Amino acid sequence: MYSHGLEKNQANFSSLSPLSFIERSAQVYPHKEAIVYGELRRTWSQTYQRCKQLASALLSYGIAQGDTVAAMLPNIPAMVEAHFGVPMSGAVLNAINTRLEPETIAYILQHGEAKLLLLDHEYVAVMKKALVIARDKYHYDSDKLIIVDVADEAYMGNKEGMGRIEYESFLSLGDTEYHWSLPEDEWSAICLNYTSGTTGNPKGVVYHHRGAALNALSNILEWDMPKHPIYLWTLPLFHCNGWCFAWTLAARAGVNVCLRRVEATEILRLMKREQVTHYCAAPIVHSMLVNADQSLKEGLPKNIKAMVAGAAPPAAMIEGMEKMHIDLTHVYGLTETYGPAAVCVKHDDWQTLSISERARLNARQGVRYHLQECITVLDPLTLKEVPHDGESMGEIMFRGNITMKGYLKNPQSTQESFAGGWFHTGDLAVINPDGYIKIKDRSKDIIISGGENISSIEIEDVLYRHPAVLAAAVVAKPDQKWGEVPCAFIEIKPGLEITPEELIAHCKEHLAGFKVPKVIVFDVIPKTSTGKIQKFELRKRVGSTQALDS
Amino acid sequence: MYSHGLEKNQANFSSLSPLSFIERSAQVYPHKEAIVYGELRRTWSQTYQRCKQLASALLSYGIAQGDTVAAMLPNIPAMVEAHFGVPMSGAVLNAINTRLEPETIAYILQHGEAKLLLLDHEYVAVMKKALVIARDKYHYDSDKLIIVDVADEAYMGNKEGMGRIEYESFLSLGDTEYHWSLPEDEWSAICLNYTSGTTGNPKGVVYHHRGAALNALSNILEWDMPKHPIYLWTLPLFHCNGWCFAWTLAARAGVNVCLRRVEATEILRLMKREQVTHYCAAPIVHSMLVNADQSLKEGLPKNIKAMVAGAAPPAAMIEGMEKMHIDLTHVYGLTETYGPAAVCVKHDDWQTLSISERARLNARQGVRYHLQECITVLDPLTLKEVPHDGESMGEIMFRGNITMKGYLKNPQSTQESFAGGWFHTGDLAVINPDGYIKIKDRSKDIIISGGENISSIEIEDVLYRHPAVLAAAVVAKPDQKWGEVPCAFIEIKPGLEITPEELIAHCKEHLAGFKVPKVIVFDVIPKTSTGKIQKFELRKRVGSTQALDS
Repeated sequence: MYSHGLEKNQANFSSLSPLSFIERSAQVYPHKEAIVYGELRRTWSQTYQRCKQLASALLSYGIAQGDTVAAMLPNIPAMVEAHFGVPMSGAVLNAINTRLEPETIAYILQHGEAKLLLLDHEYVAVMKKALVIARDKYHYDSDKLIIVDVADEAYMGNKEGMGRIEYESFLSLGDTEYHWSLPEDEWSAICLNYTSGTTGNPKGVVYHHRGAALNALSNILEWDMPKHPIYLWTLPLFHCNGWCFAWTLAARAGVNVCLRRVEATEILRLMKREQVTHYCAAPIVHSMLVNADQSLKEGLPKNIKAMVAGAAPPAAMIEGMEKMHIDLTHVYGLTETYGPAAVCVKHDDWQTLSISERARLNARQGVRYHLQECITVLDPLTLKEVPHDGESMGEIMFRGNITMKGYLKNPQSTQESFAGGWFHTGDLAVINPDGYIKIKDRSKDIIISGGENISSIEIEDVLYRHPAVLAAAVVAKPDQKWGEVPCAFIEIKPGLEITPEELIAHCKEHLAGFKVPKVIVFDVIPKTSTGKIQKFELRKRVGSTQALDS
Repeated sequence: MYSHGLEKNQANFSSLSPLSFIERSAQVYPHKEAIVYGELRRTWSQTYQRCKQLASALLSYGIAQGDTVAAMLPNIPAMVEAHFGVPMSGAVLNAINTRLEPETIAYILQHGEAKLLLLDHEYVAVMKKALVIARDKYHYDSDKLIIVDVADEAYMGNKEGMGRIEYESFLSLGDTEYHWSLPEDEWSAICLNYTSGTTGNPKGVVYHHRGAALNALSNILEWDMPKHPIYLWTLPLFHCNGWCFAWTLAARAGVNVCLRRVEATEILRLMKREQVTHYCAAPIVHSMLVNADQSLKEGLPKNIKAMVAGAAPPAAMIEGMEKMHIDLTHVYGLTETYGPAAVCVKHDDWQTLSISERARLNARQGVRYHLQECITVLDPLTLKEVPHDGESMGEIMFRGNITMKGYLKNPQSTQESFAGGWFHTGDLAVINPDGYIKIKDRSKDIIISGGENISSIEIEDVLYRHPAVLAAAVVAKPDQKWGEVPCAFIEIKPGLEITPEELIAHCKEHLAGFKVPKVIVFDVIPKTSTGKIQKFELRKRVGSTQALDS
């Protein structure tokens, strides 16, 4: 009865897509600010017109439905525009991590089959090297790649491009009134993001319009984000498309405060000048702000909301941010889940707890994000949920619309990651009695010492509690007697000092004996371009056999 | 490249449904209040359990996937629960307007093929009559209808039921841990709502899970609604499912402040007691509050947000509400668009305008609602958009996900309403230069006098500006000389007086001569159960030939 004569048609069905968001904001709030960058200010109407021009120009250069358009750009206006203009043309945006080495860029360009590349002058040198590698190693026909140079006046380095045309000239070829269409299928690809794999080739994670729209809305829901927020682009847009926030801001007719370089003085200056309301960042950026000179923080707007992911925010960071009146939300996700797909929801009654207790609660990965369907911890073999006891370990799994289409041209990895109808994150965790999930470790980061499983994160948490520790990373060091023992790499805060013995004594206060690091190394800790600690590098240093396959 | 090996599966795709919202709130905010009714207070965890019980009990009574479950209930907790429990069972909720006469109820029950009815004691008498008519007129087998009586202690009338079982006993048959599933297809029906047609048989508008979820989110977006709002149920839940707000509140883990009867003293008392933050209502309810005794308004919470639809809010109402610190949003939609599907977005710079100018701007139907794809005004024949000149009239048309599946068992009306890939509203309107849509009239409400088209709404707007006018309705009166002339029906505010001559003089000040009503009638204006003025009744009184087909 409820299906006959009640079919979908053009009037009652349209594809969910974040492209609808910018159209509405340009229509309803044409004169509201959309982009701020230095002295440049553009409205939503202007920005929308430029995005349509971009789409139209791409088509005029032969870009077709389902082609890949790559972008290697900092968080500048062209990068925001690419998030709309590229999919409006029917193409798929592949935002490339600007900190990558030529080898990986070469791999990505050929694997993603990029037809056109938007390239900031700053990355011309690395791109030249990448194209040589792509040609020599992958037989990639780099002559066919159309390069559009993006000349940003704020870049003070070599201003020589390598492309056929400059971005503004390219845009001017396009039609400001170009009539783009929504994809016929909301499951169509919108973006391609390569994982920042610590070893091996990165995998190309494909996002669709539906998921992009839904996670953009989830961001609004989590932050109770009102219309016209002022958002500072501290989080790279190449990182899971800035956790979908370019689309979130279009949905809210907010302001994209662009930022070429992540640097405390400039961030704090912009927060004041633009009266920033929201920003996202890795823990290291928040720490940078907390540790910035007090004089730079005078006059910051009150009640800025911040999101953090990538690692649990330690107590000192939470405390420092509270002093700055920044409200921190801890989210969790992966490239495969469009950025945040879980959130450590804070409760009113936590406010009365001690800072360390709040930090402990806030360090958890929490519960599912608003429009994600499920996050849980399952036994990876039986796919049974672990008891909510805070003890039983399993693997974090996701299910729902905020999960990638799959890995590009990699059906085997795709199938493995979706085995049993769940997305397998590879993160090991427990479920607390309140239903909150807490990561214990990456599967490969577990240290097995004398038959006991030791969570490297648990040890790192303790190390971070020491006031002199700036960064800590614990890996398994092969050991004749125990099989493996925990080895801790430590960066010390500038101006402070500590001995290995003091740190070990500190650990003994908080950890069972077998969990205390047997070796302490004071050294710079290697990190990926997105700030993730590269444990495989540390494992190499200690001679771990796991170094290569992790 | 972007489709192979990237198919949907259980891990990366799930149906959009508002049922996901309640599950999340029960998980993340189990102890937050969900329902307040008199002295009764229930949490989201309790409410979710009761909804699962309801679903489970329905199944135990033989309700199957795609069956219709009707509800004739005031805005009491059982009605909120029905919005989750019924679709959790796979059935479709048909909330029946509690103010309908037995004939129409009979029509709805047999047409919707209700298998089970949740019935408040207050409507037992009318339902008995309806079932007799259903049997006699439609050969409806009323013995097969399972009636569940809902005994509400707050109802002071006859407490005799007519069903097999009382609601609480019925619930207790169900399993609080019942494992419901999302519909396999988000296009599955979730609700059936009959239009409050002014003549002829009502049409059964079918909603799907996808649209219900998306409009519930749109409500949040429009109101910048933070988590845990306190929402007063002044708008009937049977009216477009309370504009989807039952689902909105589940998504926000808000409080449903239930309300059996719409009455100013009780509304204002609850606003104060529960510190209400949001409510929706027809203009008449807002007017009731504005005109309530000042003593009742003392101590109202500041900055309540209200929505109004059904008619443009007149200046006096806006002014009165501003004095009460109530922020009024004017929305527009139809049963066919899940309630609000357009909104008169206010802009900052309107604040500096005079109250009458603000009222004029606010009286417009505005722009598309957040997750609706398009609202526009088209020539109904050519489907070309009218110029944005505020003059050229056309028909308002919608397109997008917040548009019904269609009319139940009525493929002809469905096809007509979706002709050309647009949903035809039947409302005549213009587009202003700022892109805002302004209704001029229902097609059938246009008065054609001496060859000139006159908008009855334009005349009504002028009449409403007179301080003595409480309600005004203008219809075409047949006239030998002019064909038709405008005839105005007027209700005067209590305690005030005015003559027809004075009103006509007032109109002459603001209207072209041919638009001034030729006849003024002081009388009670007939309204439908949802507060819509029944112009067909007025037409009958003036002997219009249009009376029957409108």
